[in-house]
Amino acid sequence: MARTDYFDDPAAPAANSLVVAVVVVVVDEGRILMLQRTDNGRWALPGGGQELGESVRDAAIRETREETGIDIGITGVIGIYSDPRHVIAYDDGEVRQEFALCLSARRIGGSLATSEESRQVRWVSHDDLDHLNASDSTRLRIHHAFSQGPPHID
Amino acid sequence: MARTDYFDDPAAPAANSLVVAVVVVVVDEGRILMLQRTDNGRWALPGGGQELGESVRDAAIRETREETGIDIGITGVIGIYSDPRHVIAYDDGEVRQEFALCLSARRIGGSLATSEESRQVRWVSHDDLDHLNASDSTRLRIHHAFSQGPPHID
Repeated sequence: MARTDYFDDPAAPAANSLVVAVVVVVVDEGRILMLQRTDNGRWALPGGGQELGESVRDAAIRETREETGIDIGITGVIGIYSDPRHVIAYDDGEVRQEFALCLSARRIGGSLATSEESRQVRWVSHDDLDHLNASDSTRLRIHHAFSQGPPHID
Repeated sequence: MARTDYFDDPAAPAANSLVVAVVVVVVDEGRILMLQRTDNGRWALPGGGQELGESVRDAAIRETREETGIDIGITGVIGIYSDPRHVIAYDDGEVRQEFALCLSARRIGGSLATSEESRQVRWVSHDDLDHLNASDSTRLRIHHAFSQGPPHID
């Protein structure tokens, strides 16, 4: 489905929906679990939409397992990202306001595996990250994960 | 609108919606900002639904101001409450799965004031809380607010 992202754009349409997404920063020996998305080729953190009937914690564990093959234990909250200036318009008329929770986690099992959604999966060092094609919001969440201090809230 | 709450009930209908709510534990000199709800007479924390076009932070500040007269600054995340076993059925067919974020905050101004939603507003000590009619989930969130440790996540 075609989508158009708007960031702080006065021409953006008004939001008519909000879906809870969760993304996870899984750290193992200082490296971060990342995947190359099949849909746009960019490197991203594992995550996706919370489904009705599951908790945020379970959504984080399920999405990470599906997209990377890794089993995780949740360790904390990195941030709540709910800036209404980011909206996504789909071609069926839905205009979704961004709402993402970012959790921290550790690896408890599994091994790297790709999926329909992930072309490559890798443990990424900070140096490697500088050379990967990743969005600003992915980089910001990783930065928040490694900052000391209370969770980010907007 | 009539509502029916289900907690871990096999007879509960399947959820068909999820709305992000935010509740706030505002602490001042060891006491907690609470209000007596007009709709059911119980003592509760300030909070309500996030509206499209606003962030979680702004929703927390707005709802606290509306319901209690107090202006707050957000200080942290107490928990993410997303247990799918709590659903609320409304008489228009909506079956909402609970999703609440609980934030901590400090008072930065304002003075206690009631509203259409709040019959009484008060700074409550822990001893007073024992004698107030408050729900188990309100008590649990206050307990989490005063526990040391990472945010609650389910």
